[in-house]
Amino acid sequence: METTIKSIPAGTVTSPRGFYAGATHAGVKKKTGDNPDVGILLSEVPCVAAALFTTNRIKGAPVILSQERLRSGRATAIVANSGCANTSTGEAGLADAAGMANSTAKVTGVPAGDILVASTGVVGQRLPMNLIRKGIKRITLATDGGHELAKAIMTTDTITKEIALAVRDGGGGFTIGGIAKGSGMIHPNLATMLCFLTTDTAIELDFLRTALKRAVDISFNMVSIDGDTSPNDMVLIMTNGMAGNDPITADSCHAGVFQQALDRTCIYLAKLLARDGEGATKLIEVTVGGALSTGDARIAARTVVSSPLVKTAIHGNDPNWGRIVCAAGRSGAEIVEQKLDLCIGNICLVKDGIPLPVDLKQVVKVLAGSDVMINLQLNLGTATATAWGCDLTEEYVIINSKYTT
Amino acid sequence: METTIKSIPAGTVTSPRGFYAGATHAGVKKKTGDNPDVGILLSEVPCVAAALFTTNRIKGAPVILSQERLRSGRATAIVANSGCANTSTGEAGLADAAGMANSTAKVTGVPAGDILVASTGVVGQRLPMNLIRKGIKRITLATDGGHELAKAIMTTDTITKEIALAVRDGGGGFTIGGIAKGSGMIHPNLATMLCFLTTDTAIELDFLRTALKRAVDISFNMVSIDGDTSPNDMVLIMTNGMAGNDPITADSCHAGVFQQALDRTCIYLAKLLARDGEGATKLIEVTVGGALSTGDARIAARTVVSSPLVKTAIHGNDPNWGRIVCAAGRSGAEIVEQKLDLCIGNICLVKDGIPLPVDLKQVVKVLAGSDVMINLQLNLGTATATAWGCDLTEEYVIINSKYTT
Repeated sequence: METTIKSIPAGTVTSPRGFYAGATHAGVKKKTGDNPDVGILLSEVPCVAAALFTTNRIKGAPVILSQERLRSGRATAIVANSGCANTSTGEAGLADAAGMANSTAKVTGVPAGDILVASTGVVGQRLPMNLIRKGIKRITLATDGGHELAKAIMTTDTITKEIALAVRDGGGGFTIGGIAKGSGMIHPNLATMLCFLTTDTAIELDFLRTALKRAVDISFNMVSIDGDTSPNDMVLIMTNGMAGNDPITADSCHAGVFQQALDRTCIYLAKLLARDGEGATKLIEVTVGGALSTGDARIAARTVVSSPLVKTAIHGNDPNWGRIVCAAGRSGAEIVEQKLDLCIGNICLVKDGIPLPVDLKQVVKVLAGSDVMINLQLNLGTATATAWGCDLTEEYVIINSKYTT
Repeated sequence: METTIKSIPAGTVTSPRGFYAGATHAGVKKKTGDNPDVGILLSEVPCVAAALFTTNRIKGAPVILSQERLRSGRATAIVANSGCANTSTGEAGLADAAGMANSTAKVTGVPAGDILVASTGVVGQRLPMNLIRKGIKRITLATDGGHELAKAIMTTDTITKEIALAVRDGGGGFTIGGIAKGSGMIHPNLATMLCFLTTDTAIELDFLRTALKRAVDISFNMVSIDGDTSPNDMVLIMTNGMAGNDPITADSCHAGVFQQALDRTCIYLAKLLARDGEGATKLIEVTVGGALSTGDARIAARTVVSSPLVKTAIHGNDPNWGRIVCAAGRSGAEIVEQKLDLCIGNICLVKDGIPLPVDLKQVVKVLAGSDVMINLQLNLGTATATAWGCDLTEEYVIINSKYTT
């Protein structure tokens, strides 16, 4: 039985069978062209669903509502908006989140209790509910509506983040799709800003929860744009079983391929988040190998990719590699300086903790690329982890010093 | 017995009796005017001394050497340079650090084992030992040489950081002085970049160590400029006893006033570090009160003051206060959203977790000042902490994207 996983051209969250989406400009954000700000994702039939939410102690009203509704492990639709996070808005904000679901129930016929809510944008402001209610009524759902929804959840993102994979596994198979948005306040801890995943394969709830946690741990949880964790983070997966298979469990022979497809989907979207970080001009990928534990590898990789000094040096193509070593050194991971090896791209700069004679002009060339790969070997054990981030630019400061004014 | 603590005009690290300093331009850095890069601080008589060093797993050669020498609790002099950190330089770097002490021993007559070493600057490069040896021979030590030494340890600092306090305590009294440098890779964990403190009062070693730890915990350890902890951090205090008093112990009636003077000296220098952070235009002071524990108050205050989104918003005078609440929420401190009160300057923005109706133009005015005070009350307990930082500006990115090129 041969398994193939193929990327679907223009694939998106509505590529799996039985998923519909649509969006409109309701007026939460100023109209600046083709910028929808409210959208709906819906499955023809109820889904087994799982999600991971922000670990920020401040949680947006939509997070509180969706977390509560998802305890059942079932959902049929989600309504989402950008431009306003509906966070730090108290009881009134909770009522607004429920109101978004109620309006969506009216136009879709789905029971309100099966509808989740997600919001992203400025914290501390109420949603313009009149505009949102009117907007929801205008939304047309279609099997090719995923791209519109991907646009509707963008804030400072400059591109939509979409993917779908076709998995052929012997005679059967399934499709998995997803969309996500960044691109500031990104330093996920259990989840990232918004990401909606769909699949038409049937999956047993416990395995779905485990598989999602695993995929998020090696994808969204290894991305950092600015070290700030948002109070509205949410990664949701909806599985509607329309592929007609028996539900996949942890013991199924299909469990491995599902995990593989889910991992690949999440990593693809996570890397897109990093590459499109606010003001970013480059993707930075940091792999730490030879660590004593996976925890050590993860924290070292994440600390290096988050370091403002590493990020600014890479922005300026400055081969100031000492900053990479210093960031790993403060990460809390077990590190023995005399054992460190460091490469940037295919140039090795440090061996056994000692700088090698290197033509720094070649390093500058490598740093000038759009993808900068850093490989730090600790040579203490066998654990490995990879983290993704972006350079820190003047543009990041400009974007974020004028966000609400 | 009345105690008074007074700031000494133009006070510095050589204001206490019996301390001498001097510096010269040796050539570690390019000559750009009046920019000495090697200097010496020396006490007429051997000192009881204590220090806190970086917790980064990567430690500069001078840190390793000074840490080893300070186990005795005694030191007579320190030689310091800027422009090169002598870090990630292996055994050769350790020999260079020892060489700096040896050269200093020759010109001062102090045994090399009583001389500490500190370096700050680029990581991964060897010291130009020939230039340094020649430079050390040219240094003239004087009782008013503290200001020259303060200049010699500057890297991207735009101002020297100096202070001295005269403590009158009944008939007796003492003087305490200090200098420090920033201004990037500042997120101290036990210590900060370089800080040298002196006093002419006699202090028992155990109490000195405890008092220094306490003072650093509420000063340098509460400063963050960019979240990166340097591998060369060092806060050193030298006490030469020339005030002629019996050594102060934890039980002395003078213990309290010494701690008070030490705290004040450290907080003054720590705030100067924050205000002069790379690219900074403002000092940000964040006080978190009503926390369940001091640990909670400290981590919440430090997380808010370190948040890139808070720092950029303040830079742009953008009253995007939700970012403050979000940063506290992700800090790990126990927080109940419904109990939060938030004020910026004298304007209260949030009460019991709910936004108050506020004239945001007034908030913009407060943010436009050179000192921005943020007060976040958690209303859960009685613990309080204050942290200091600075705004994040385009200039920070420009400085750090071209540091070595």
